[in-house]
Amino acid sequence: MIHTLESAARDLFLSGAARTVAGRIIGIVGFFILTRIAIRIGVRTVHRLLNSPAVKMDERRRGTLTSLLDNVVRYTLYFIYFLIFLELCNFHVQTLLAGAGLAGLVVGLGAQSLIKDVLTGLFILFEDQYGVGDYVKINNFTGTVDSIGLRVTRIRAWTGEIEIIPNGKIQQVTNYSRNNSLAVVDVGVRSDADLQQAMAVMESVMRDVASESEDVVGPVQVLGVQAITQTEVTLRATAECRPMNQFGVERLCRLRIKEAFDRAGIPLASSQREI
Amino acid sequence: MIHTLESAARDLFLSGAARTVAGRIIGIVGFFILTRIAIRIGVRTVHRLLNSPAVKMDERRRGTLTSLLDNVVRYTLYFIYFLIFLELCNFHVQTLLAGAGLAGLVVGLGAQSLIKDVLTGLFILFEDQYGVGDYVKINNFTGTVDSIGLRVTRIRAWTGEIEIIPNGKIQQVTNYSRNNSLAVVDVGVRSDADLQQAMAVMESVMRDVASESEDVVGPVQVLGVQAITQTEVTLRATAECRPMNQFGVERLCRLRIKEAFDRAGIPLASSQREI
Amino acid sequence: MIHTLESAARDLFLSGAARTVAGRIIGIVGFFILTRIAIRIGVRTVHRLLNSPAVKMDERRRGTLTSLLDNVVRYTLYFIYFLIFLELCNFHVQTLLAGAGLAGLVVGLGAQSLIKDVLTGLFILFEDQYGVGDYVKINNFTGTVDSIGLRVTRIRAWTGEIEIIPNGKIQQVTNYSRNNSLAVVDVGVRSDADLQQAMAVMESVMRDVASESEDVVGPVQVLGVQAITQTEVTLRATAECRPMNQFGVERLCRLRIKEAFDRAGIPLASSQREI
Amino acid sequence: MIHTLESAARDLFLSGAARTVAGRIIGIVGFFILTRIAIRIGVRTVHRLLNSPAVKMDERRRGTLTSLLDNVVRYTLYFIYFLIFLELCNFHVQTLLAGAGLAGLVVGLGAQSLIKDVLTGLFILFEDQYGVGDYVKINNFTGTVDSIGLRVTRIRAWTGEIEIIPNGKIQQVTNYSRNNSLAVVDVGVRSDADLQQAMAVMESVMRDVASESEDVVGPVQVLGVQAITQTEVTLRATAECRPMNQFGVERLCRLRIKEAFDRAGIPLASSQREI
Amino acid sequence: MIHTLESAARDLFLSGAARTVAGRIIGIVGFFILTRIAIRIGVRTVHRLLNSPAVKMDERRRGTLTSLLDNVVRYTLYFIYFLIFLELCNFHVQTLLAGAGLAGLVVGLGAQSLIKDVLTGLFILFEDQYGVGDYVKINNFTGTVDSIGLRVTRIRAWTGEIEIIPNGKIQQVTNYSRNNSLAVVDVGVRSDADLQQAMAVMESVMRDVASESEDVVGPVQVLGVQAITQTEVTLRATAECRPMNQFGVERLCRLRIKEAFDRAGIPLASSQREI
Amino acid sequence: MIHTLESAARDLFLSGAARTVAGRIIGIVGFFILTRIAIRIGVRTVHRLLNSPAVKMDERRRGTLTSLLDNVVRYTLYFIYFLIFLELCNFHVQTLLAGAGLAGLVVGLGAQSLIKDVLTGLFILFEDQYGVGDYVKINNFTGTVDSIGLRVTRIRAWTGEIEIIPNGKIQQVTNYSRNNSLAVVDVGVRSDADLQQAMAVMESVMRDVASESEDVVGPVQVLGVQAITQTEVTLRATAECRPMNQFGVERLCRLRIKEAFDRAGIPLASSQREI
Amino acid sequence: MIHTLESAARDLFLSGAARTVAGRIIGIVGFFILTRIAIRIGVRTVHRLLNSPAVKMDERRRGTLTSLLDNVVRYTLYFIYFLIFLELCNFHVQTLLAGAGLAGLVVGLGAQSLIKDVLTGLFILFEDQYGVGDYVKINNFTGTVDSIGLRVTRIRAWTGEIEIIPNGKIQQVTNYSRNNSLAVVDVGVRSDADLQQAMAVMESVMRDVASESEDVVGPVQVLGVQAITQTEVTLRATAECRPMNQFGVERLCRLRIKEAFDRAGIPLASSQREI
Repeated sequence: MIHTLESAARDLFLSGAARTVAGRIIGIVGFFILTRIAIRIGVRTVHRLLNSPAVKMDERRRGTLTSLLDNVVRYTLYFIYFLIFLELCNFHVQTLLAGAGLAGLVVGLGAQSLIKDVLTGLFILFEDQYGVGDYVKINNFTGTVDSIGLRVTRIRAWTGEIEIIPNGKIQQVTNYSRNNSLAVVDVGVRSDADLQQAMAVMESVMRDVASESEDVVGPVQVLGVQAITQTEVTLRATAECRPMNQFGVERLCRLRIKEAFDRAGIPLASSQREI
Repeated sequence: MIHTLESAARDLFLSGAARTVAGRIIGIVGFFILTRIAIRIGVRTVHRLLNSPAVKMDERRRGTLTSLLDNVVRYTLYFIYFLIFLELCNFHVQTLLAGAGLAGLVVGLGAQSLIKDVLTGLFILFEDQYGVGDYVKINNFTGTVDSIGLRVTRIRAWTGEIEIIPNGKIQQVTNYSRNNSLAVVDVGVRSDADLQQAMAVMESVMRDVASESEDVVGPVQVLGVQAITQTEVTLRATAECRPMNQFGVERLCRLRIKEAFDRAGIPLASSQREI
Repeated sequence: MIHTLESAARDLFLSGAARTVAGRIIGIVGFFILTRIAIRIGVRTVHRLLNSPAVKMDERRRGTLTSLLDNVVRYTLYFIYFLIFLELCNFHVQTLLAGAGLAGLVVGLGAQSLIKDVLTGLFILFEDQYGVGDYVKINNFTGTVDSIGLRVTRIRAWTGEIEIIPNGKIQQVTNYSRNNSLAVVDVGVRSDADLQQAMAVMESVMRDVASESEDVVGPVQVLGVQAITQTEVTLRATAECRPMNQFGVERLCRLRIKEAFDRAGIPLASSQREI
Repeated sequence: MIHTLESAARDLFLSGAARTVAGRIIGIVGFFILTRIAIRIGVRTVHRLLNSPAVKMDERRRGTLTSLLDNVVRYTLYFIYFLIFLELCNFHVQTLLAGAGLAGLVVGLGAQSLIKDVLTGLFILFEDQYGVGDYVKINNFTGTVDSIGLRVTRIRAWTGEIEIIPNGKIQQVTNYSRNNSLAVVDVGVRSDADLQQAMAVMESVMRDVASESEDVVGPVQVLGVQAITQTEVTLRATAECRPMNQFGVERLCRLRIKEAFDRAGIPLASSQREI
Repeated sequence: MIHTLESAARDLFLSGAARTVAGRIIGIVGFFILTRIAIRIGVRTVHRLLNSPAVKMDERRRGTLTSLLDNVVRYTLYFIYFLIFLELCNFHVQTLLAGAGLAGLVVGLGAQSLIKDVLTGLFILFEDQYGVGDYVKINNFTGTVDSIGLRVTRIRAWTGEIEIIPNGKIQQVTNYSRNNSLAVVDVGVRSDADLQQAMAVMESVMRDVASESEDVVGPVQVLGVQAITQTEVTLRATAECRPMNQFGVERLCRLRIKEAFDRAGIPLASSQREI
Repeated sequence: MIHTLESAARDLFLSGAARTVAGRIIGIVGFFILTRIAIRIGVRTVHRLLNSPAVKMDERRRGTLTSLLDNVVRYTLYFIYFLIFLELCNFHVQTLLAGAGLAGLVVGLGAQSLIKDVLTGLFILFEDQYGVGDYVKINNFTGTVDSIGLRVTRIRAWTGEIEIIPNGKIQQVTNYSRNNSLAVVDVGVRSDADLQQAMAVMESVMRDVASESEDVVGPVQVLGVQAITQTEVTLRATAECRPMNQFGVERLCRLRIKEAFDRAGIPLASSQREI
Repeated sequence: MIHTLESAARDLFLSGAARTVAGRIIGIVGFFILTRIAIRIGVRTVHRLLNSPAVKMDERRRGTLTSLLDNVVRYTLYFIYFLIFLELCNFHVQTLLAGAGLAGLVVGLGAQSLIKDVLTGLFILFEDQYGVGDYVKINNFTGTVDSIGLRVTRIRAWTGEIEIIPNGKIQQVTNYSRNNSLAVVDVGVRSDADLQQAMAVMESVMRDVASESEDVVGPVQVLGVQAITQTEVTLRATAECRPMNQFGVERLCRLRIKEAFDRAGIPLASSQREI
């Protein structure tokens, strides 16, 4: 299909009209418009195909594939346009960059990081490292995957900004959406608090939260004395939550524990000391 | 067009006059002046074309294209001038750098980062990573995109300075102008504050701000107890705002919450403690 | 076997049908489906073989091998599919990348990090650096090894997220599952505490914990005064535990020591000072 | 011109005298003196030409061009001297470095960073990233550009020291002299201060400063509550100033606001607390 | 010997049976089993040889050599197995990677870090940088050397975990087991302490510890006032100890000095201040 | 001259005596002694020439040239010695490193950083980045330039140690000896101080110091309120001093301002607060 | 000599016995023993020669040369042994690594850092950057140079551990043993102290120390007010000491100044404040 399209384009634009400068410019502009139309049609076809009920896929994979194929269609057509464009302009550049070795060197240098981006992108998809909609951390940036392209991945932070990372620059991927997440609640009590009582209160609060909140799907646990620092004794409790719902659970637990401690008279490290 | 221009220049300057040293110098200077004029004409044509009402484009894309085409016209003419200049001077350099391999190596080394800059620049445009006027963060520098060139991107910080970054040095792009931004307001209250009351006051203040300010376009939320540190209990609220208007909203919320807390007698962590 | 499979595929798809564009597309799609089926069959065979009672292996090695062979089967079939795909499409790409040297350069550049990943992966397995289920620290990320592939290692943190690290990016491996772990308990007492008494109390608490907890498998030791800082005197005790159970033991020790110190009137550094 | 000069030099020094060692040394020394004289004449000519009233240029561009052409003249003559010197000495070095490949490699390695420096320098000039006299920040060093050479840029810090940076080592350029600068004044007040009153006082002070100081060229603004920390409430005001005059304006504003707050009884965060 | 083994294997597996796919698979599996047996025999022989009383070596060198030869035997047999395996499979790979240059490139890229690891490993052994059992610090990781292989070094931390470092990644080695170690005891006293008395008490305590503990093998010294900070005056004493026993000596000294200072009424910086 | 010397050496040592091993060893040793004598004579000649009253140079340039020519003489003779040495030994090395390509690669790799060092050194001298005796900062090390060699620069810190930096490792040079230095005196006063009075006192003190000290050569200035922090209000004054004398001036100013503030009753931030 | 030794070895071991595998093994082991004996003899000869009274050298240079020649003898013999070893084993490796280009690549890659180490080591010696016994700082590690080898430098820290640094990894060298060291004593006094009196007391103490201690060889100086921070006024004094004796002098000065200040009633910043 690609071949046919390109041949037609070449026959059309390079045969007669291309002999004059004006003809070439018209050709370039014309083909530019044709390319844009082709891109739109291609992209729409991809969307329609993938979102038709005939294709059985879960939502996450459908999003990933749509964003990828969009990309493939776009870049393929850009590439063809670029080749036609080069041929239409190609009356002087070649004589400048005559040496094939030099041209090869130049292309190689330029293409190097591009190839690395695309290859890493393919591996991300084949190995299913993350899909559109996953909550991930890539190179110190955390957010929801917006789209996975052949060359770049876009992530949307919870505060709204879009981060664009070339795939080849990705060093480590942390995917938060694969397993249940663990809510970890650390509470610092004063050194004169009764630890056994505090842990008992914590456990009962955690159980209440677990029975009440739908986000908690696993067991809750009061792990015990996490640290004894110079100013406080830190107690830790955990609860298994649905992926990425641990932040809300942690906030709820903190509120409830604070209130329960106040009721039970267990002094928080931040509570007013009597001097 | 480029071809014609260059041929004419070459015929004019290299045929007769170029045989004497003086003639060459005149040629170089003359062609330098011609180049400057050509650049002005080219740049004006680009501006007129893109800003004519016939071209239907949104403002952002128009700015980006204008700044880019400016660049393309400039560099193409610089390049032609450089070639003519080399040919006019070219009576001794060649014998020095006789070995083609060495010359290729030298050119390749020099051109390497240049090509990388241009390629990255093209991808920024094709992938629409950011446009002129977007508020972005590139390599730890934050500001409004001033212009996108083939080789460098210029960013204007809110305090006025211009940052110039070669495109090939861009590692990660954060674009704040694509989605609504989230205003995040953290307020630390004293450990003896009534958290339920504090959260209720916060929520009512946030609602007031949302109904009052046009910058708030989405729902407001009081998330809850973000952290319990040794000196305070941190409460967090959020509000969805129009892109890049969150800073003003956050400032307004802080002012209102402070005043509402003072009225309601909820002690801030920074409030005077009675000892 | 691979040879046979590929020959058959090639005979089938490239002979007749491949002469038309439509035929090629059908061939690509058809072979894509065949590849998926082949992968499923291959993966299942691997699982059945390795998990059959006839194969005598400890659980850890069985998990590692299963995850590895899965990978080998998958990538081999992907590779064959890719070759067939290239041959089916291969009517224009070749003329573009005509120069073999350039193609070699491009392939070499792309394949470089891939080969490094696979080689490092093989060494991890041959040298038994870690297996599936080990608790490891790789490049500042700590967790349980989820799977070891030819190209990437997946680690599951204790809070649930999955970290994906290309094998070639692994710099140093710390394996916590090979030896017994040492629980280290540092407790800071006030400067006016009786150190001999405090160390005696600590020792008796540590012995109680050791006799009580099954996780403590080696001797307990009170090492002595670890540091004298401006605000406290730090005492240190250790206990040898079963691998990765030291955290629970440390928590238990901290709780018991705190309670024993309170009973014995030994002031902790965090205890309320009388002014 | 260069050619003529070099040919004459070569004829003179290499023909007869160069046959003896003494003659060569005399030749080297003599040509060394000639080179120095030529440099002086060249540099003076450049200065006279560029500073003649006939050349219409603004001061900044004139400084930049003078410093650059100085450089070009110097290095060209150094280079010619070096070639003559090599030919005069060249009776043994060549036999040592016989292999042309090795020599090419060595030259390439040595010339690599030199070429990168010069190319980056040219782009700095072509793209007008900064000129002589601009206040810039390059690689964590801030100051006024003293000179832009082909190879290095010299910057003078406000405390007087000269920083010398090879152009090829320049990563990011921040130019403070292109736009108006924004004076940003942050003042921390105590938690018990009346914020509305404080902001009103600030605004009136800022207006006074703006009407009084010639350095303020744009509107002043009291942005509001920038942050609520554990010890203070930070208020922020801004004023648009002429480039690089914001530091003086900020100092003036701080003094005036401090005095106005003292008069109005608004407590600064640093004010003595009554206990 | 290696040659004989491999020839036999090749004759056996490649002659007749290898003509069929099934025969090849049997050959691969069979040779895999043979390789495992050969490794076991080789490793046992190495152990028996090196640990026989006939070989006169100190314990440290014996451990190092055993761990090394183990490695050499293993990798040599793995390598032979890999070659046989390639020959048995080698009916399609070759046609894919036809270009010898490309294959060389790929092998070179892959082998690069492997060769660096082995070379560095050899230098570690030849230069006796560390042996099995030494307490070392390599790249920010401290512990006892567990084994030195051709490719990796394994270190066991005092808390039990195993660190695996490729030899080629080793930057700097710090060996604590070569010389006596110096116990350094810093004690901070209050500003109103009598320094001469404090130093005298310290000296007498250090002498007692030295005469009492077998770990102290060199002279003890009270160096004097190490620092005067805003909160304390730091005194320093040292004692030469047997390698790696300084930690215990330091703890003992701290305990004794604390007790002696309490007896003598010299106030520690951490002691309760009377206000 | 070099040629003659080397030819004589070669004739002498390689003709007859070199045929036996003993003769070669004698030759190597003998030539070693000759080289040392030649170096001494060469170095002395350089010193005498450059320090003779006939040569008109300022002291700084004389020091730089002496240290450089020393170096050139030394390395040239080392190099000749090395070549002779190689020829005398050269009966086996060549057969080992038979392949010229490999030898070239090895030499190139080894010579790479050496060439970079020498080239950077030449540019430091040509561009007069610093001379012997200048006070500079190179790569985070500050001190007086002790000597500039072809390969390394030596710097003497004010506390006496010598820092040796290969020229090729120099990233940025800060030269403090080119311009007058600016003494910057920051003094923090308490929030309740009268700022106008404090600034007036500061100004009068600065004027006194300027009229009294010969090191102050430019105007003194009280810039104003540099910062308002939570604990103090910082005032800044400056004075232009002779290069590198600003430290003494700053110390003097601090002493005088402290005394003047005490006399005038202006409270320093560090002054005792009455509670 | 080397040639003779190797020829003999080759004649002996490769002629007859080497035809059988057993003979080869015997040859390898036998030559291994011979090599060890040769190393011992060579090393002893070097020591005897360099330490004989006939050789006139200062102690430092003698130590450096002994440690270097030891190294040269050792590595030369290792290298010869390695070559013989290769020839004895060399019946299969060659056929594997048939391509000379690949072998060259592999050797070059492996040898690269080795050559860099040796070249840097030679420059350290030629340029006399440091010698055995010097107190130096190399790459953040400080200590006394223990030995300088062709490939690595060993440093002994003052606490006893040995640091081993490959010469090629050395970035910057700081040598403390070349010049006198400067003892720098900073003392912080309270804001209400009489600075003139404090400086006078300091000066008299410094003079006493200088007249009393043999380590002080240059003038003492009280520089003045180094800094005025929020909590103290820092005074600085210096004394020129013999190399590396400044630490003892500093400690003595601190002790004496503390005592003198206590006698004179000058309050240290760390002294108890009366509230």
